[in-house]
Amino acid sequence: MSKDDSRMWGGRFSEPTDEFVQSFTASITFDRRLARADIEGSNAHAMMLERIGVLNADELSAIQNGLQQIRDEIAEDRFEWSVALEDVHMNIEARLTALIGDAGKKLHTGRSRNDQIATDIRLYLREQITSCCHGIRHFQAGLLDLAEREADTILPGFTHLQVAQPVSFGHHMMAWFEMLERDHGRLADCSRRMNQLPLGAAALAGTSYPLDREYSAELLGFDQPCRNSIDAVSDRDFAIEFCAAASICMVHLSRMAEELVLWSSAQFDFIRLPCRAPVLPRPDFSFVA
Amino acid sequence: MSKDDSRMWGGRFSEPTDEFVQSFTASITFDRRLARADIEGSNAHAMMLERIGVLNADELSAIQNGLQQIRDEIAEDRFEWSVALEDVHMNIEARLTALIGDAGKKLHTGRSRNDQIATDIRLYLREQITSCCHGIRHFQAGLLDLAEREADTILPGFTHLQVAQPVSFGHHMMAWFEMLERDHGRLADCSRRMNQLPLGAAALAGTSYPLDREYSAELLGFDQPCRNSIDAVSDRDFAIEFCAAASICMVHLSRMAEELVLWSSAQFDFIRLPCRAPVLPRPDFSFVA
Amino acid sequence: MSKDDSRMWGGRFSEPTDEFVQSFTASITFDRRLARADIEGSNAHAMMLERIGVLNADELSAIQNGLQQIRDEIAEDRFEWSVALEDVHMNIEARLTALIGDAGKKLHTGRSRNDQIATDIRLYLREQITSCCHGIRHFQAGLLDLAEREADTILPGFTHLQVAQPVSFGHHMMAWFEMLERDHGRLADCSRRMNQLPLGAAALAGTSYPLDREYSAELLGFDQPCRNSIDAVSDRDFAIEFCAAASICMVHLSRMAEELVLWSSAQFDFIRLPCRAPVLPRPDFSFVA
Amino acid sequence: MSKDDSRMWGGRFSEPTDEFVQSFTASITFDRRLARADIEGSNAHAMMLERIGVLNADELSAIQNGLQQIRDEIAEDRFEWSVALEDVHMNIEARLTALIGDAGKKLHTGRSRNDQIATDIRLYLREQITSCCHGIRHFQAGLLDLAEREADTILPGFTHLQVAQPVSFGHHMMAWFEMLERDHGRLADCSRRMNQLPLGAAALAGTSYPLDREYSAELLGFDQPCRNSIDAVSDRDFAIEFCAAASICMVHLSRMAEELVLWSSAQFDFIRLPCRAPVLPRPDFSFVA
Repeated sequence: MSKDDSRMWGGRFSEPTDEFVQSFTASITFDRRLARADIEGSNAHAMMLERIGVLNADELSAIQNGLQQIRDEIAEDRFEWSVALEDVHMNIEARLTALIGDAGKKLHTGRSRNDQIATDIRLYLREQITSCCHGIRHFQAGLLDLAEREADTILPGFTHLQVAQPVSFGHHMMAWFEMLERDHGRLADCSRRMNQLPLGAAALAGTSYPLDREYSAELLGFDQPCRNSIDAVSDRDFAIEFCAAASICMVHLSRMAEELVLWSSAQFDFIRLPCRAPVLPRPDFSFVA
Repeated sequence: MSKDDSRMWGGRFSEPTDEFVQSFTASITFDRRLARADIEGSNAHAMMLERIGVLNADELSAIQNGLQQIRDEIAEDRFEWSVALEDVHMNIEARLTALIGDAGKKLHTGRSRNDQIATDIRLYLREQITSCCHGIRHFQAGLLDLAEREADTILPGFTHLQVAQPVSFGHHMMAWFEMLERDHGRLADCSRRMNQLPLGAAALAGTSYPLDREYSAELLGFDQPCRNSIDAVSDRDFAIEFCAAASICMVHLSRMAEELVLWSSAQFDFIRLPCRAPVLPRPDFSFVA
Repeated sequence: MSKDDSRMWGGRFSEPTDEFVQSFTASITFDRRLARADIEGSNAHAMMLERIGVLNADELSAIQNGLQQIRDEIAEDRFEWSVALEDVHMNIEARLTALIGDAGKKLHTGRSRNDQIATDIRLYLREQITSCCHGIRHFQAGLLDLAEREADTILPGFTHLQVAQPVSFGHHMMAWFEMLERDHGRLADCSRRMNQLPLGAAALAGTSYPLDREYSAELLGFDQPCRNSIDAVSDRDFAIEFCAAASICMVHLSRMAEELVLWSSAQFDFIRLPCRAPVLPRPDFSFVA
Repeated sequence: MSKDDSRMWGGRFSEPTDEFVQSFTASITFDRRLARADIEGSNAHAMMLERIGVLNADELSAIQNGLQQIRDEIAEDRFEWSVALEDVHMNIEARLTALIGDAGKKLHTGRSRNDQIATDIRLYLREQITSCCHGIRHFQAGLLDLAEREADTILPGFTHLQVAQPVSFGHHMMAWFEMLERDHGRLADCSRRMNQLPLGAAALAGTSYPLDREYSAELLGFDQPCRNSIDAVSDRDFAIEFCAAASICMVHLSRMAEELVLWSSAQFDFIRLPCRAPVLPRPDFSFVA
């Protein structure tokens, strides 16, 4: 195997990697969505490395310019993703080295793909949660408007779909509001809990470089570095917590959707849906007199 | 069907309930575990009813004495549970009325089984979460001791079960500690989020009695009454959140258990388990020199 | 620890087992439901052992009489279950030895708890599946009657709960019939696939006794012995397959139940449910003219 | 909204569809994988329509040529998918009409998107199952070779990862073989059970055209038409059954993978993996002497 072999596992085996194995183990088809987070993390890592003297100012500058160019190439869909380079980290690192030479390789000082991916996922998920939370707040604002407008509209309240007591339509909308309030809380709790920086954990046992993890954490908006390096790279419980919170939220949205379907039936005929986007950002129903 | 028929759904149907249906719809075989919470909720409800003048002091006293007696009967396994009475609420109410007469029935004023069960489940789950959190804290204390004791014991760190870098056994234990710390946080968040009182929501639309919900909430240790009555009785998202948090915790415990199994194998031989309880409250391993 | 200590793991440890560990690892609180299957399996195993000359006729007779007595004690709720004896196998074996002496211990010749429990679960599950299948067939018979009676009753057919095309109520019932037909097929496939005997696999590698596994299989109604001993004792995929088939069936039943709820609402008012058991064995609805 | 508006729901609403709603409700981004199945189904439907006299020979010929051209365009990645056309059916129908005119519209006679999609999914899934089953058979063949070659290689058998009894490596491989045999059986059962044709069910209540459903079923390789039209279009239990069978198979593969990881560890060192594709079609391990 020649020295310029770009396959990751070349060093371990005496024969070239089978193409099926290469494509089966590559994650680039789905982890490329982490590219922006990966660049953001690398940028902060480079700034920290310059601060502790591992990189000089010129190297930092070259790295930052190179990363900026890669970000633009990706944004404009001009970046060439390579399955042979396996994942988003190696794709970006290879491109950076092609653009700026050896300084690109020095970026990986004191870092492993293990703490890098753990950081990327947290940055990405933090942004996604923020976006979900904004969506929920928009939705709640719409429900609040609707609840005020329909505060006096009487609706039958049901138990087991049997008419029980009269409620107002506004009151029913505010029940939805409350459910979403808890969904928002769960997502915010998840975001807060995972907001610790894995960088510095390296493969699992840290590194002998005198990294300034507090500085990296500050640059990336994390509350603090992770306290234990093994935990930092080996646990994804925050991702499961997000899936759980998102699933509960979807159950709520499904329940609301089912009520809309029921109310729109000829037998119930409580609401008529207009053509405008029915839910986001402002729900808008016409009530049958 | 005679007037004193004790079956719940007698009023709706012209024929007696088939025995299969009765036992199929009864929940008493599993909701009897809520009995203590049910009595605690009833006691607070009675105190509130007395405060707003629905019950007089004698009635309150009779109810409280009756509930105390029922609590004792249940604790001593002398209570006779009846499937015909369907659920824990009706079993206790029927017994209370048998013990103290009509005052027992007045206890249900301004209350429905809908807000009653919603309250019971929250009281019960809050206690269970407290118990889980105590268990986690005990476990963490044991891990901390062990980590200090084995701070200098070198263990291979693995990636994909291939030896990677040396770590200390204490450091590995502290990775477990961190996982449990987040598990504790998730359970505490769940408990805090659900700590609102459903009583007062009645079937779903509240009641015309001037209930003092803040007082009931205070008596039962809830932060406040639920803000929306429909939401209060119709959503169990807190229970799903608990299941999610508990499941993540169990994944952590399973991972720890698997590591113990691996380390105890003849091939690894890192630890030898003593006969004493291996995990709670204090883990205790002997390390092979 | 004395020699007659009845705890299973006494041999491995130098200290007595902590009571918490004993109760945590015991399965007797839930595996006692396998008792009848366990006795059936032991009976067949004993007959096979006698056939190959490991037991003599008197020993077999003693074992069979002892097992019969234990079966009666369990059926009449006179059997004393012991947590210290851990599981259903040890409870029954200990009782058998108490009743008939050393012959009871010889019953375990060429058998391990590993192949014993694998056999018990299959026997138990096979019976449960038969029972589910009977229930489905009863239900289908009721649907067929109803479909014939209501072949000319017109019902709106819905898409997304909007009225689409008229159908007959009988036709709708036959859609339910078809779903159940596939549920029945899934359960039958599961039963057929698992109907192989694990006995003879012992702990995992078989035994040096010349067991007649075909004879045991025949006695217990299995199609044949399992072909691989490791697989026989280490895989429970058939149980997962059953859970999957049962879950799909429950989704069907839930869908039917939701349609009944919808049709019973004041807004739809398609059916009125009588007080008689609504579903098993014969569904019976009154249609609103 | 103009008459030639291509949006599906134009008829229902007085305002144009919001772009967000359009892209949210469109399925074309994921159901385009059904394109080949959709064309295959349409081809058979057209042949049947010609047989019963709804289409003449020229129309059939035009449709078949048009469908063939569309299939080629898709295969060569020249087909222009439109989100405004919502799903795979409308994209193909619109293209067909553009290519051959009104005959393209006649293809939809006696057919709804409801029975069309139900047919497409079954055709697609049937092919996927066949592919999975081939993969399993290849894998089993490799295991069989390996088992023969390593029939005399002794391996410790473990219970709870403690050395229990010696087994041969070949015997262990045959345990894997047996697990896969049942996985194959589950997938084959699923394929057989769903192999009934929904076409003819239309939206849910059939059609007044005298369709020859047996002929369509024969052309598409289905065992028979579905027996009930409501069931045919409204149940996807076969897809859940596939997911369940595939999940159980993945649990097996995961277990095998974990054993390979364990055996490759420095502590176990039972096998050394070569660089060649490790599993498909022929597993190839080097055993440590």
